[in-house]
Amino acid sequence: MTHPIPLMIQERLDKIPMLIAMQIDYRFYDGNELLLACPLSPNINDKGSVFGGSISALATICGWTMTSLEALKAGINCNVVIAEQTLQFLKPANSELLASCKCAAPENFCHRLQAGRRVRLDLNVSLSSEGESIAIFTGGYVAIPPKELPKGT
Amino acid sequence: MTHPIPLMIQERLDKIPMLIAMQIDYRFYDGNELLLACPLSPNINDKGSVFGGSISALATICGWTMTSLEALKAGINCNVVIAEQTLQFLKPANSELLASCKCAAPENFCHRLQAGRRVRLDLNVSLSSEGESIAIFTGGYVAIPPKELPKGT
Repeated sequence: MTHPIPLMIQERLDKIPMLIAMQIDYRFYDGNELLLACPLSPNINDKGSVFGGSISALATICGWTMTSLEALKAGINCNVVIAEQTLQFLKPANSELLASCKCAAPENFCHRLQAGRRVRLDLNVSLSSEGESIAIFTGGYVAIPPKELPKGT
Repeated sequence: MTHPIPLMIQERLDKIPMLIAMQIDYRFYDGNELLLACPLSPNINDKGSVFGGSISALATICGWTMTSLEALKAGINCNVVIAEQTLQFLKPANSELLASCKCAAPENFCHRLQAGRRVRLDLNVSLSSEGESIAIFTGGYVAIPPKELPKGT
């Protein structure tokens, strides 16, 4: 069953005009897997396939949203920032692009956030088009609780 | 002295609507270094800094343009595709974002293209804002000559 995107996360996403330009569509979330999509047309490149920058941006926001969703499971509306990413392009995406991410929060993720500590989450995002894998993304995200304790305390 | 972007490359860039949405500006090219920029406003994120997806997209197209420029030095209007990338985010970009790339084509780059062979070029792109380095990008690009010889010949 698909859960709606929580309003606290949607409000953050609505502040990013590039997501509107890309026509990113929230497709599915069941508490474990998140699926986002964007159409070819606004994201097309000079070769008629999806622009690499759009592939990277869709994957980035898919992992970002998953990290935000995991933090909300701990009851905390976190700031989430991306620290690093790698992306391997396997083949062109010639139609709608899909990004899929499964949650992989470590056991202490919720506890650290609830204790006022920032936590890093490393996520894999699979990119596909027309049923085929077209790219593999890994991103390292940092969730920062609103009332963060000073380092060393 | 700044060289204009060659028409053959500009025609390819004009086919990518995301570059228009990002308001990417060609700033400088002297035959060795290329500088691209984009303003904060269309690329802003929920925290008021530049969206990570925009940082990645600007870096991606900076390396892509440099690879295309290097191929034109060999007299060849190549298709260029990105094969892989890594991106480390160092700090937020709170103003205009700049991407800078210096050419680093290996000695055999031109010869291979002229012989009808595809060539991979690995490039570093430096991202900065307000005079400070904010991210480091590396991209592996493949230049494919229009009359490519079949593999194994």
